[in-house]
Amino acid sequence: MMDYPLLVHQFLERASVFSPHKEIISREGDSAHRYTYADLTKRASRLSNALAGLGVGKGDRVGTFAWNTYRHLEAYFAAPSMGAVLHTINIRLFTEDLVYIINHAGDKVILIDPDLVPILEPLAPQLESVEHFIILTDDRSFTTTLPSAHNYEDLLSEVSDEYSPVRVGENEPAGLCYTSATTGRPKGVIYSHRGIVLHSMMAAQVDTIGFRERDVVLPIVPMFHANCWGVPYTSALVGATQVLNGVRPDPEVICRLIDSEKVTLSLGVPTIWIGVLDHIGRSGRDYDFSSLREIVSGGSAVPISLIQAYKKKLDVNLIQAYGMTEATPIISYNRSTSGFDSYSDGDKLQLAGTQGAMVPGLEMRLVDDENNDIPWDGDQRGELLFKGPWIADSYYNDPRTEETFIDGWYHSGDIASVSPEGYIQIGDRVKDMVKSGGEWISSVDLETAIIGHPGVLEAAVIGIPHERWQERPLACVVANLESQGKLDKADVLDFIKDRFASWWMPDDVVFIDEIPKTSVGKMDKKVLRERYKDHQLGN
Amino acid sequence: MMDYPLLVHQFLERASVFSPHKEIISREGDSAHRYTYADLTKRASRLSNALAGLGVGKGDRVGTFAWNTYRHLEAYFAAPSMGAVLHTINIRLFTEDLVYIINHAGDKVILIDPDLVPILEPLAPQLESVEHFIILTDDRSFTTTLPSAHNYEDLLSEVSDEYSPVRVGENEPAGLCYTSATTGRPKGVIYSHRGIVLHSMMAAQVDTIGFRERDVVLPIVPMFHANCWGVPYTSALVGATQVLNGVRPDPEVICRLIDSEKVTLSLGVPTIWIGVLDHIGRSGRDYDFSSLREIVSGGSAVPISLIQAYKKKLDVNLIQAYGMTEATPIISYNRSTSGFDSYSDGDKLQLAGTQGAMVPGLEMRLVDDENNDIPWDGDQRGELLFKGPWIADSYYNDPRTEETFIDGWYHSGDIASVSPEGYIQIGDRVKDMVKSGGEWISSVDLETAIIGHPGVLEAAVIGIPHERWQERPLACVVANLESQGKLDKADVLDFIKDRFASWWMPDDVVFIDEIPKTSVGKMDKKVLRERYKDHQLGN
Repeated sequence: MMDYPLLVHQFLERASVFSPHKEIISREGDSAHRYTYADLTKRASRLSNALAGLGVGKGDRVGTFAWNTYRHLEAYFAAPSMGAVLHTINIRLFTEDLVYIINHAGDKVILIDPDLVPILEPLAPQLESVEHFIILTDDRSFTTTLPSAHNYEDLLSEVSDEYSPVRVGENEPAGLCYTSATTGRPKGVIYSHRGIVLHSMMAAQVDTIGFRERDVVLPIVPMFHANCWGVPYTSALVGATQVLNGVRPDPEVICRLIDSEKVTLSLGVPTIWIGVLDHIGRSGRDYDFSSLREIVSGGSAVPISLIQAYKKKLDVNLIQAYGMTEATPIISYNRSTSGFDSYSDGDKLQLAGTQGAMVPGLEMRLVDDENNDIPWDGDQRGELLFKGPWIADSYYNDPRTEETFIDGWYHSGDIASVSPEGYIQIGDRVKDMVKSGGEWISSVDLETAIIGHPGVLEAAVIGIPHERWQERPLACVVANLESQGKLDKADVLDFIKDRFASWWMPDDVVFIDEIPKTSVGKMDKKVLRERYKDHQLGN
Repeated sequence: MMDYPLLVHQFLERASVFSPHKEIISREGDSAHRYTYADLTKRASRLSNALAGLGVGKGDRVGTFAWNTYRHLEAYFAAPSMGAVLHTINIRLFTEDLVYIINHAGDKVILIDPDLVPILEPLAPQLESVEHFIILTDDRSFTTTLPSAHNYEDLLSEVSDEYSPVRVGENEPAGLCYTSATTGRPKGVIYSHRGIVLHSMMAAQVDTIGFRERDVVLPIVPMFHANCWGVPYTSALVGATQVLNGVRPDPEVICRLIDSEKVTLSLGVPTIWIGVLDHIGRSGRDYDFSSLREIVSGGSAVPISLIQAYKKKLDVNLIQAYGMTEATPIISYNRSTSGFDSYSDGDKLQLAGTQGAMVPGLEMRLVDDENNDIPWDGDQRGELLFKGPWIADSYYNDPRTEETFIDGWYHSGDIASVSPEGYIQIGDRVKDMVKSGGEWISSVDLETAIIGHPGVLEAAVIGIPHERWQERPLACVVANLESQGKLDKADVLDFIKDRFASWWMPDDVVFIDEIPKTSVGKMDKKVLRERYKDHQLGN
C-alpha cells in the first residue's frame, strides 16, 4: 500500500471539493454569520499565510483563547496545515494556570476574542514566549494594551487565499490541550495528526456517534475543551453543517439554535443538558426539537432520570459518551446493540444509564489496586485502563507522565464496573470516593439516586472529615424552582433509603443555590470539600 | 499518542468480546452451519496453531482455494494473526494462470475445498513452493492425489484454541490477491494490515457502506475476489452477523438466504443482481426482501433500468460502488448527499446511475492522455488516478508496476467523467473503447442504453476491425425469456437511435444465449472480440 500519511488538512481538502456549499453558521449575538466550506477553506489558507508572515513555522504552538466561532474554526485547520500545533486554551482557568500553560506550551502567537482580551491584558508581561496577539475581530477601532496586537481581518486581507500544506509525518503534533490535575498545574496532551484522523474515522461510524453529511452539528462543548470532542474535524470529514454558538452561550441560545437551524446532533456536558431542560421548564417556551436525531452527553455520568425527562418531555434521545482529554477524547458510546432488543424496558433503561461500549479501535482493561484484571460482571469495580492509537502516551514535558502511563497503558483514574456485554458504568474518580471506616462509598451512586427525586435539580455528594469513620458523606442539593424552600433533609433521605445500606446514607443534607463548576462545566467538589470541611454532621 | 499499530487481528479480538454471541451462518447445501464470533475466534486460533505446526511463519503465504464458507473465514483471520499472508486464489482462473500465481506468490500451504480438489490435483507437480494441502472438510474418508494432504478438522482438533498474535508492523503484508491483466499473467496486489484496517474504518462510516452491528451481511462477491470487498473484516469490526453462501451459489440460493436469514446488506457484481431479478421473474416465487436496507453493486457499471427494477419490483435500494483489487477495493459509494434533495426525480435517477462520490480518505484526479487535469463537469472524460492509504503502490514482484504506479498515483485505466458534485461516472476501460475513424465511442454508454429496452437481459458492445474506420461497434444482445426469438436488430437500434450521434450507432446486432463472463463475473469482451473478429457488418 502507498505510504500515505493521515493528516488533518485532508479533512478540509475533501470538504472543499465534495461539500463546498455546506454551511458553517456562527452565532453573533441575535443573528448569525454564515459561510460555506469553500469559504472556510480559503480563509483557513489566508490564516496560514498570515501566521507564516508572523514567523510561525513547523512545530510552533499557536494558542487560541476564544469561544466557538468561525474564526476559531479557521485556526483549527490553519495551524495543523502549517505543521504548527493548535493550543486551545481554556478561558475559564485561574490566572496562575493560564500563565503556566501558555509559558509551558511556549505559545508563539495567541488568537483571542475581543471580550476575553481583559483577561490576558494584565498577564501579558508574564507570558514569556508570545510574540504576537491576534484579535479575532473585524473592528479596526478595537484597542488593547496587549503588545504586538494585530487585527485578524486585517491580517487575512493582506495575504493569498491559497496555501500548500507543509509536509509533516502523521505522528507529528497537530494539537495541544491541557487538562486539570488533581494536584498541581494542568497537564498538557499532544494530539498527533494520525490520532485525530483515526478518531474522526471512528466517530463517523454508524455504531459510534455516526457523524454524517446530512448532520447539522452543534457542539456545545467549548472549542477550548478536549479538542472540542473532535467535532470540527469529524464534521469536516463528512461535510456536515456546523453550528457554532458564539460568545457566552446560555441555555436559551442553545434552544434557539437547535430550533432555528434544525440541528440534528448536539454535544455537551450533563450540566448543559440539565440547564436546557430547566430553561424550557422555566420559560414555558415551545422550541421545535424534532430535527434532533440525538444529543450526546459526556464528561460525567448522567442520571437516568435526565434521559427519561428528555425522552418524555421533548422526545429526544440523550446518549451517553465517555472520554477524556487524554483520549482525543472519545472512549465509549452508548449505541444500543442488537443483543439488548430482548431486554425488559427496565434493563434497557439501566443500559442507557451506562456510558456504553468501548468504540472499535481501542483496548481496555478493568483492574484492581494491584493491576489484576477484574471480571466484567456489572458489579465489581476497578480502575479503567486504555490503549490505542488516539490515546496519549505521555503528558507534554511533564514528570507526572510516569504516574499515569504505565507499561503501555493509560491509567484513567476512573473507577467503573463493566457489564458482561462490555458496557462501562463509570463510578467515581478515585479522588471522589468517600472513604468511611475503611470501606468505599460511591458519591456518584448517591448523587444519581438523589437527582431522581422530582424536586431536585442537582446534587453533589462529598466526603467530609470524621473523627471516628475518617470520612462521611454529605449531600449538597439544589432544589428545582417549584421545590425551593419546601424540600427538606428527610424528603431526600427517605427517597433513597431503600436503595443503600445504612452506612452508605449521607449523614447530612445541605441545600445550596448552585453546585460550583470547574472550567469545563463539571461539578467542582474541591470547592465544596473546602467549604464544608468543618461542617458538623447531624448524627 | 501511543505507538499503536493497526492490525487485522484486532477486529476479531473486539468481536469476540463485544459481540461473542453474534452468528456466522454458512450455507451447506440446503441447510446451514451456525456458530458465533466466540467460536470463530477459537477456531481461527486453532488454525493459527495448526499452520504454525506445519511450519508456517511470519511472511509466509497461505493460499486458499475455496468458496464462501466459515472455514475460509477462519483463514481470513488466522493467517494475518501469524504475520503470514492470506493469498485468496481465484478458483475460476485458467490452469496456466493458477500455476503461475501459486508459484509467483510462493504459497507454502493451500487450503482447498473438497469439490475443488480435482482442479488442483493435475497441477500439483507444477506447484513449486506448496508443502501442504489442507482439505476444508470434516470427512476423514476424503481421498486425494494431492501430496502431503491434511484434513482440516483433524489438524484443528489437535491444537489449542488459544493463540497470541505475532507482533508485526502495520505496514507488513496481511493479504494478497491477483487481478487479471489486459495482457499477460495476473498481477498480484499486497494488502497491508494498515490498509485493511483503514479501509474497514471507512466502510463502517454512515456515508459509505455503513456496516453496523445490527447488519446481517451476505457477501455474494466471492471470498477469492478483491479481498471479498473487505466484508469479512468490516463485519467483524462492527460485530455484524455474517452469512456465507457456500459451494456453487446460484440466484435461488441467494434469494433463499436473504429471505430466511433476514439479510440487511448484500454485495455483488451486476451480473448477480441481474440473475437474481431474472430468477424471481422466472420462478414466480415470492421471497421476502423487506429486511434489506440496501444491496450494493460493484465491479462494473449498472444500468439505471436495473436500479429502477429493483426499486419497483422489490422495493430494494440498489446502490452502486466502485473499486478495484488495487484499492482494497472500495473507491467510491453512491450515498445520496443533501445537495441532491432539491434535484428533480430524473436528475436523482441520473445520480443513482453513477458510481458515487470518492469515499473520505483518498485523493483522486481526472486526467487526459498527457496527465493534465480535466474539469469535473459531468461531461469531459479522462482517466481516473487515485492516491491514499489503502491504494497499492505496486504489483507484487512485477515489472508492470511502472506502467500503472507513476509519480505516486495509481493509474486505474478506467475512463470516466466526474460531475461537479464529485460523482464518478465510469465509462469504459481504455481497452474497451471503440476507436472509429480516430474518434472514441463508449461501449458502456451503448450497452447501458440497450439494456434499457424491456426485451433485453444483457448486452455487450465490442469494437471489431473495419477497413475504413479501423473499428466499428457491434452489439451482442441477450434477449430475456419473453422476448427470445421476437426481438430483432431494428427493435434494438430504433430504441437507442435518438440518444446517439449516427456514427456511434452499432453497425450490427447479434443475438446470443449469454454473455461470456470472466472469472470474477464481469463481461469477458476478449472472448467476444475473438469470436466476432471476422464478423461481416451490415453495410
